[in-house]
Amino acid sequence: MKIRVYYEDVDAGGICYHSKYLNFCERARSELFFSQKTSPIQDDYHFVVKHIDADFLAPAVFGDEVTVSTTILEFKGASLTMLQEIKNEKDGLLFQMKVLLVCLKGTTIAKIPETYKIILIKDA
Amino acid sequence: MKIRVYYEDVDAGGICYHSKYLNFCERARSELFFSQKTSPIQDDYHFVVKHIDADFLAPAVFGDEVTVSTTILEFKGASLTMLQEIKNEKDGLLFQMKVLLVCLKGTTIAKIPETYKIILIKDA
Amino acid sequence: MKIRVYYEDVDAGGICYHSKYLNFCERARSELFFSQKTSPIQDDYHFVVKHIDADFLAPAVFGDEVTVSTTILEFKGASLTMLQEIKNEKDGLLFQMKVLLVCLKGTTIAKIPETYKIILIKDA
Amino acid sequence: MKIRVYYEDVDAGGICYHSKYLNFCERARSELFFSQKTSPIQDDYHFVVKHIDADFLAPAVFGDEVTVSTTILEFKGASLTMLQEIKNEKDGLLFQMKVLLVCLKGTTIAKIPETYKIILIKDA
Repeated sequence: MKIRVYYEDVDAGGICYHSKYLNFCERARSELFFSQKTSPIQDDYHFVVKHIDADFLAPAVFGDEVTVSTTILEFKGASLTMLQEIKNEKDGLLFQMKVLLVCLKGTTIAKIPETYKIILIKDA
Repeated sequence: MKIRVYYEDVDAGGICYHSKYLNFCERARSELFFSQKTSPIQDDYHFVVKHIDADFLAPAVFGDEVTVSTTILEFKGASLTMLQEIKNEKDGLLFQMKVLLVCLKGTTIAKIPETYKIILIKDA
Repeated sequence: MKIRVYYEDVDAGGICYHSKYLNFCERARSELFFSQKTSPIQDDYHFVVKHIDADFLAPAVFGDEVTVSTTILEFKGASLTMLQEIKNEKDGLLFQMKVLLVCLKGTTIAKIPETYKIILIKDA
Repeated sequence: MKIRVYYEDVDAGGICYHSKYLNFCERARSELFFSQKTSPIQDDYHFVVKHIDADFLAPAVFGDEVTVSTTILEFKGASLTMLQEIKNEKDGLLFQMKVLLVCLKGTTIAKIPETYKIILIKDA
């Protein structure tokens, strides 16, 4: 998934604001669903972020087109660990994070539905 | 209402990103309710922005503490026009906008409840 | 230009936060330059928003793919007026604004360079 | 430091968007400087985020007033590790992260100036 770095993403230091990389990763996770004409919110099921371990290796700058790649590291009953990486052409790897997502139905922890698993495995 | 301009608000040009002034104004509108221990969302009633006419006069910069002032220009049955101004100490008036808000109950246009009017008139 | 509405764009009311439409319009303006392998910031030249007159007609929701179209209404020496419209497939026109942009070189108002005009006329 | 959760902070799920907690922590770090009438950017010195390890324990919701606390865990020559916690009154601890910050002068890694250390130790 390709994402452009716009004015709104860049901060006073002239580089991409640090928390925006998390947004870019979330867009890529949601796009796994949207690209298959479905949604990450179905029948009250959705994922929430529980833990993030992130390395900021090099900054993206205004106008950069970055690529977000997503790999599933582990499925558990109600949770999921992904590795997400952000790269640009010039500098290579800019950002990587391991993110633990928990599946909720409404506000209760719930087993990840098979339909979600199929979408996630197919795309990521 | 005082608002600080942080890293996240400032863009590649080193000045406050233009749409952030609208956010600051929305914070000030919501704070009219929060400061009176209530919420702008009550019994499904809430306001949506219908029209904005905005002048960007001078830029706020990183670290600025700006003041947002809100004046009610007109109440109609289901709508409301406000004048909101953003100033800093050094440059004076930075931004002003007239905003037309429409009251909804759920997704239907609704007469502004008296409780809302009282809060708005008292504070703004 | 197509833009997806993600989690980060949607607010407590379940619809796209009002100031995000301004961001989407800015992305479209910047993309006029990026799509031609150039940048809206060149030799210290760039545009700042001076005035906005915006109508919010219908809300975009989570997962919507909206289209931003940009038309140039008028060039003056150092300024430029555009009409920008945001649509989705289901509801048609969601948002429209007239935006007055002023060209700066550093922090001084400057005549719009011909190179900028050529890019803007070609694309918008 | 107290921060209100506004419309712009809350997402389609009705809770604070996950990366906003990082923004709130950054505001608190910057405010350590602003509250002492100085800036986190001085003579080209500033900090960038290098690593984050974050736990999302419970969600903040629209209208919440959260408190961000900052503790310095370790100073090294050019870097600094902080523990930052976000709480609200009703649920207690909502979010905690360890963040590794690196000091730059321009784009080069630099020893943290004593003036910075004094501000950070005094406030955090």
